[in-house]
Amino acid sequence: MPFERGQIGMSIETTAEKIRTMQIRGAGLIARQAALALKEFALVVPASSIEEFNSRMAEAGEMLLHTRPTAVSLGNAVRMVVRHKESDLGVARAAVAKNADEFVESSLQAVGRIGEIGSRRVQSGDCILTHCNSSAALSVIEKAHLEGKGIHVIATESRPRYQGHLTIKRLDDLGIDAQMIVDSAVRTVMNEVDLVVVGADVITASGSLVNKIGTSQIALSAHEARTPFMVAAETYKFSPETLAGAPVVIEERGPEEVYPAYRELRSVRIRNPAFDVTPHHYIDVICTEVGAIPPEMSYLIIKERLGWQLSDSL
Amino acid sequence: MPFERGQIGMSIETTAEKIRTMQIRGAGLIARQAALALKEFALVVPASSIEEFNSRMAEAGEMLLHTRPTAVSLGNAVRMVVRHKESDLGVARAAVAKNADEFVESSLQAVGRIGEIGSRRVQSGDCILTHCNSSAALSVIEKAHLEGKGIHVIATESRPRYQGHLTIKRLDDLGIDAQMIVDSAVRTVMNEVDLVVVGADVITASGSLVNKIGTSQIALSAHEARTPFMVAAETYKFSPETLAGAPVVIEERGPEEVYPAYRELRSVRIRNPAFDVTPHHYIDVICTEVGAIPPEMSYLIIKERLGWQLSDSL
Amino acid sequence: MPFERGQIGMSIETTAEKIRTMQIRGAGLIARQAALALKEFALVVPASSIEEFNSRMAEAGEMLLHTRPTAVSLGNAVRMVVRHKESDLGVARAAVAKNADEFVESSLQAVGRIGEIGSRRVQSGDCILTHCNSSAALSVIEKAHLEGKGIHVIATESRPRYQGHLTIKRLDDLGIDAQMIVDSAVRTVMNEVDLVVVGADVITASGSLVNKIGTSQIALSAHEARTPFMVAAETYKFSPETLAGAPVVIEERGPEEVYPAYRELRSVRIRNPAFDVTPHHYIDVICTEVGAIPPEMSYLIIKERLGWQLSDSL
Amino acid sequence: MPFERGQIGMSIETTAEKIRTMQIRGAGLIARQAALALKEFALVVPASSIEEFNSRMAEAGEMLLHTRPTAVSLGNAVRMVVRHKESDLGVARAAVAKNADEFVESSLQAVGRIGEIGSRRVQSGDCILTHCNSSAALSVIEKAHLEGKGIHVIATESRPRYQGHLTIKRLDDLGIDAQMIVDSAVRTVMNEVDLVVVGADVITASGSLVNKIGTSQIALSAHEARTPFMVAAETYKFSPETLAGAPVVIEERGPEEVYPAYRELRSVRIRNPAFDVTPHHYIDVICTEVGAIPPEMSYLIIKERLGWQLSDSL
Amino acid sequence: MPFERGQIGMSIETTAEKIRTMQIRGAGLIARQAALALKEFALVVPASSIEEFNSRMAEAGEMLLHTRPTAVSLGNAVRMVVRHKESDLGVARAAVAKNADEFVESSLQAVGRIGEIGSRRVQSGDCILTHCNSSAALSVIEKAHLEGKGIHVIATESRPRYQGHLTIKRLDDLGIDAQMIVDSAVRTVMNEVDLVVVGADVITASGSLVNKIGTSQIALSAHEARTPFMVAAETYKFSPETLAGAPVVIEERGPEEVYPAYRELRSVRIRNPAFDVTPHHYIDVICTEVGAIPPEMSYLIIKERLGWQLSDSL
Amino acid sequence: MPFERGQIGMSIETTAEKIRTMQIRGAGLIARQAALALKEFALVVPASSIEEFNSRMAEAGEMLLHTRPTAVSLGNAVRMVVRHKESDLGVARAAVAKNADEFVESSLQAVGRIGEIGSRRVQSGDCILTHCNSSAALSVIEKAHLEGKGIHVIATESRPRYQGHLTIKRLDDLGIDAQMIVDSAVRTVMNEVDLVVVGADVITASGSLVNKIGTSQIALSAHEARTPFMVAAETYKFSPETLAGAPVVIEERGPEEVYPAYRELRSVRIRNPAFDVTPHHYIDVICTEVGAIPPEMSYLIIKERLGWQLSDSL
Repeated sequence: MPFERGQIGMSIETTAEKIRTMQIRGAGLIARQAALALKEFALVVPASSIEEFNSRMAEAGEMLLHTRPTAVSLGNAVRMVVRHKESDLGVARAAVAKNADEFVESSLQAVGRIGEIGSRRVQSGDCILTHCNSSAALSVIEKAHLEGKGIHVIATESRPRYQGHLTIKRLDDLGIDAQMIVDSAVRTVMNEVDLVVVGADVITASGSLVNKIGTSQIALSAHEARTPFMVAAETYKFSPETLAGAPVVIEERGPEEVYPAYRELRSVRIRNPAFDVTPHHYIDVICTEVGAIPPEMSYLIIKERLGWQLSDSL
Repeated sequence: MPFERGQIGMSIETTAEKIRTMQIRGAGLIARQAALALKEFALVVPASSIEEFNSRMAEAGEMLLHTRPTAVSLGNAVRMVVRHKESDLGVARAAVAKNADEFVESSLQAVGRIGEIGSRRVQSGDCILTHCNSSAALSVIEKAHLEGKGIHVIATESRPRYQGHLTIKRLDDLGIDAQMIVDSAVRTVMNEVDLVVVGADVITASGSLVNKIGTSQIALSAHEARTPFMVAAETYKFSPETLAGAPVVIEERGPEEVYPAYRELRSVRIRNPAFDVTPHHYIDVICTEVGAIPPEMSYLIIKERLGWQLSDSL
Repeated sequence: MPFERGQIGMSIETTAEKIRTMQIRGAGLIARQAALALKEFALVVPASSIEEFNSRMAEAGEMLLHTRPTAVSLGNAVRMVVRHKESDLGVARAAVAKNADEFVESSLQAVGRIGEIGSRRVQSGDCILTHCNSSAALSVIEKAHLEGKGIHVIATESRPRYQGHLTIKRLDDLGIDAQMIVDSAVRTVMNEVDLVVVGADVITASGSLVNKIGTSQIALSAHEARTPFMVAAETYKFSPETLAGAPVVIEERGPEEVYPAYRELRSVRIRNPAFDVTPHHYIDVICTEVGAIPPEMSYLIIKERLGWQLSDSL
Repeated sequence: MPFERGQIGMSIETTAEKIRTMQIRGAGLIARQAALALKEFALVVPASSIEEFNSRMAEAGEMLLHTRPTAVSLGNAVRMVVRHKESDLGVARAAVAKNADEFVESSLQAVGRIGEIGSRRVQSGDCILTHCNSSAALSVIEKAHLEGKGIHVIATESRPRYQGHLTIKRLDDLGIDAQMIVDSAVRTVMNEVDLVVVGADVITASGSLVNKIGTSQIALSAHEARTPFMVAAETYKFSPETLAGAPVVIEERGPEEVYPAYRELRSVRIRNPAFDVTPHHYIDVICTEVGAIPPEMSYLIIKERLGWQLSDSL
Repeated sequence: MPFERGQIGMSIETTAEKIRTMQIRGAGLIARQAALALKEFALVVPASSIEEFNSRMAEAGEMLLHTRPTAVSLGNAVRMVVRHKESDLGVARAAVAKNADEFVESSLQAVGRIGEIGSRRVQSGDCILTHCNSSAALSVIEKAHLEGKGIHVIATESRPRYQGHLTIKRLDDLGIDAQMIVDSAVRTVMNEVDLVVVGADVITASGSLVNKIGTSQIALSAHEARTPFMVAAETYKFSPETLAGAPVVIEERGPEEVYPAYRELRSVRIRNPAFDVTPHHYIDVICTEVGAIPPEMSYLIIKERLGWQLSDSL
Repeated sequence: MPFERGQIGMSIETTAEKIRTMQIRGAGLIARQAALALKEFALVVPASSIEEFNSRMAEAGEMLLHTRPTAVSLGNAVRMVVRHKESDLGVARAAVAKNADEFVESSLQAVGRIGEIGSRRVQSGDCILTHCNSSAALSVIEKAHLEGKGIHVIATESRPRYQGHLTIKRLDDLGIDAQMIVDSAVRTVMNEVDLVVVGADVITASGSLVNKIGTSQIALSAHEARTPFMVAAETYKFSPETLAGAPVVIEERGPEEVYPAYRELRSVRIRNPAFDVTPHHYIDVICTEVGAIPPEMSYLIIKERLGWQLSDSL
């Protein structure tokens, strides 16, 4: 994504506006653009003292956070970039810029590293089931394919937005032997599946997974058939706020996605939750760019990677 | 369905052709038309002895059975109609005609009786989840609604053929408070559900349910949440052949139902199983027109209602 | 209970009144007294034809049934006594009288036979947990004790009516090594338990057990610890009506049993369900006076013992 | 086994002695020889009345039963052969002889029929796991192999008597692609297995399976992995006695089978149970020569095939 | 509890005596009073060196600990207060005093913070089940009520000491819509429950919960019905000693609590365990004053909050 | 094992050779000998700079690691010994030597400490089941026996190498009341067992256990019967590499161990996996020499004890 790097000059306001209007979208891209905007801001914002600098940076962070308050990657990016311990103004500007560069670099490499770590758990001839269209999950699949493991993939169509169509196009381009099924056919094929790999929208402090509607049903079917269930997730998907008990709000999307003629209905209404919650006891492993962990260890990602302590949450 | 009764004149050949070309479709309608064609045939077929009569009836039955060899209701209708113990030719013709009339009558009343029996298990204010578009399941729902139980219904859209759209239109016409969800959202809403009610394509001798793809996944979610799972099924849906170990063949339908542009894919193929199998330990009760039974009792329906013995299967 | 036999002269009206006012109570006693009242009535009721006799017997049966419409043993007694196929008036009177005698005899012997059958599954040194105060369950325990199996018993106190106190008094009288615990301690002791034995208020056509509140929780704990769960139940506890989908209504008893000062509460109310429902998949065996059966076979008791067919229910 | 048919002349005493000393062994062979001895005895035993005949037949049956009181097939053979309703002495002799012939014929054909019924549930390319050395289970495997289904078999060695060695020799003779594993490796390979097929020593009235030690552990592993578990069992393996609560006694065999030097041990002793009990909820289907049934239907085999009623048990 | 703050002058001996005689009771109060007694002692105890001071403080801690050796909050208080790294006597006295003040302050605020964190997981209209009488669990309920979430509460009576009566009085005072049930009715109502919230006596290093008898049974029922189970626990309830394998001893209380006339029994004895152990896999979340954690993370509370390392346990 | 300490003079090459040829075997012994060889090497290896020293140490470590690349204890020993932060050559030599001594000391004491920690969870009269021949597991058993807890032990024979024979000899020498069973009998005896204790070959970052074939089957049976399952494992058994997704390769041993005449087979082959993987949700506690932890906490052992960070894995 080289175009990202040229947009450093974009102001906080411009970036915030583009995130709000969804010109910038996708958990990773939002996070990286926010980091770069903060870097530019840090280098040029007028400040006569370290206190003033910190205060201005906090304001900039707040502005970005308000554009998509539930985007966990945005919050993680802002917190990781503005955090520094310097008392000298010039050193602090440089520290924030360095934080931003490191965040972007790490974020850009994360998907590749997840692919490497995750594919080590794929064995020759495995049949892998995936859901929706996750770049991290696809990275695991691609890496295993490129290593010549002769894998087979089953992809769901992922109603209502059919993201499975994007997935099968990618698989078809790569020449990977694959099948697409309707979401209802998951349990029927599960006894053929050796490994389920899905992405993540959010991972909570207790290791539960918030992901595309249907994921928890797949995890339940995998559990019933003793099929391992792997989550592929960049560390910026982990939510520190959940440590403080904050529930993850499940977005309810418009009825037209499911049933365009919904206005003609009188006593029936369309319900369209975009995500569901998979409890951690149905998850075998979460592959991140810093390692493969059991879901119950999620707090340690939050602490060691995102820099949060238990009591920070309060 | 009053039009059915007028078509008694239709010959075996005509009926067989209409079943084969799916002009006559639906498990109940197929069975009833076959019964009526056999009745007419029995009354007019030339025969000089009881043996010849029985032989002609067997041929007629075979012809009908070959149109849809996996339609369990057709087999049950043919067997129940041609069965008689008479030695007088005239009496035998009458016996077959009576068998046919009784089968049709019982079949036409079955859905209503299932509604009565099933709705007794619905409690005031219950939230009922249903899948696909089953007249027997809808009969339970309608009856409970008409009894003023103030029920709420959640219907799945039932990809790939969207039979859920038929279901919500019926619910909307009846003014029943309802919601429609994508198939992937079942587990998300299951904690709100008090009862799942689905129909049946086939019920095996061991009480397993063959029904619209997605049913077994719903049963698994219901089991996880301790939500009762009821099957509404006419007795002609029970398969005597499975007593002899015959597996129920799951029809694989065309890829275009799922993904019209399937010809453009190279390494990806579309897989479209029409049904799945729900194991009996996820089923709490099967409501038939002769009573509410545990699934493990299915053989007794086959024996007492369909007239098969254990060793008949061999 | 020899006193019962002397009361044959009691009229239908008197018996009905005593049942209604609970002077006659307990599932077995109610059933036997109803049978004997019907016998007396059958022998003396004026009737000029078999039709009139049958009609009068039906009226008498209805009167008895209305006293406790949910008492399953009463319904079974009435049905089993009035049933006959005679066309001669005198023979019919005698047949009903014989039915009544047989019902009473069988009922009186049932508990003893259940004890014999059930105790065969008790092994030397077993620790048996029981709940509430069931004569059938105690019969199993006593028989095993008398056979010198050196058993140990754990009894729950069975709030809110403390029927466990009756149980431990009986165990103490018999000198059986036993413990009493509060109902909440069941899971804590379950790993020490080798067998759970409880009685039954009603058994449904699908093999579910309706019994004293707390029973289903004990069954769940037993299942978790792989401890066998046995129900001791006379065959007149099986409910033919449930074949037709009739739910078993759980009696809600008065708040004073749980919290005498309930009137002082403003926003809190006391809830006191007397029974709960144990699903058949938590029950290993039901010991009746005619044999030890899996719960899914309950319909066969209803059919072979109580004389009901599937379609009788409708 | 043609030699069996020639031994009709063997007296009851001789047959009893050979069974007791294990010259005649194996559930099927014991049962057939007992039937033939009873036939010969029935044809020649002096009797002046039908009562005397019946009494002598009962004595003969008792003598045979006492040789191996826990051999369920022996009890079933004796009961099925001596049972008749004739009042004429000559006719009764013939009836018993006919019973014996039918039992022998049916028994000899049972394994073949089980193979046919069971193999219908085997799909092309299936991997089948089996335990110990059961002719009924092997019949299913052989039939599927002969039908060209391209199956693969995994056999356990079946300590302590290594019956798995017999199984793999048979598989090797048939050229079936197979593997042998130690008993401890079952769970490790279970995710590769599509179907488990085992034989039976006894099946109880509640559908539980008594079979070679290790079977219940395999069933548990199959259940954990959603792998179907099939039992292949002749109907004479079903135990009517268990209806009356009789527990199946698990034979404890000698320590030398497990650890020849057991006499050198001081505080350690060798324990060698020959069989274990698999609960019916881990069994998907029981294939008998009269049909494929769910385990909960076992009483119906006992009733319809073996001719026992519920109350016969008492 | 303002009175606590005025009692700083109480000596170690007096405090120890009051704890022993249960004049001071309740996990929180015991811990705070011990902390304050240590503070006073630290400020006045004569000591000529830092070593002497540390030694005297250790003696004082030991004296307090011996009053209730199984009170985990007491041990945590003593350890957190006496811990310091100072070498100057005066500074050390001040450090201990500061530790004590901080412990008291944090402890007093803990229940409120737990209420805030826990109530974030309560949704509008939720039905919450609670057991016994826990101030932390009630804090979650009260907070959710005060936020206008329109909750409904079900409280158990909590035999044998009826602490549920205290709970319903509190709920009644607050005007919260609530019901009280006997402990045996938990499974019956569980399908209506959206969230279980209970307190804690001790939480082990592996995340298991020791709490009022009956808690584990409730957790099992919640698990069966997919109902979330939340523990509300101050961090001083976590037991560092369990890291070293120390089992939590379950107190057995007197028989008179359960059955006052216990002396009249001969072969029956009353058993009265006060607590039970809920395994961590039935617990969804533990809400503490420093965050909401999965139970498997308990060691991190012990390490980060209570200051213990793995090897400290030895 | 005092002989170990005298072998300090052994060179890296000699030690490597002895490990490769299995003259040195057993996870603990391999690790300690490697540590001592590195110590000697560090004290004498010529080096003109700290860089050269570090480089030579790394080479020595690599040589040792290559002898048994899958021996997790060897890797842990090498990493813990060569790790130092010194810049002075002499100090560095001493630091490595000290690391080696500490590793050896800790390793030698680990089994004893595990016995102490683990035996705290053993209660009087417990029946403990163990598998294979683990010194750590036996340490728990011995310690409990020496404390007079009156335990009873059940040991499996552990096919194919019969390590159970070593276990029962040890138990017999100690006079511990014990039984030996075939591996297939585990589920049969599980209801008598109060605690399962096994050793470990490897523990992964997510807490899964790699141990002797059969272990996972035992864990499954224990889980089914609510019997606690304890792993006794030195901390050097934890695998840091698994953090990076590395699967643990299960060694396949020769067919002759299982079936010496394997060459005579044509279509049957012998399969002999030496280990299996027990998922962490079947493990209640892992007792190490630094504490008793839930399996999900394994990363913390890797981090705090073995000195690895999440990102070290990459």
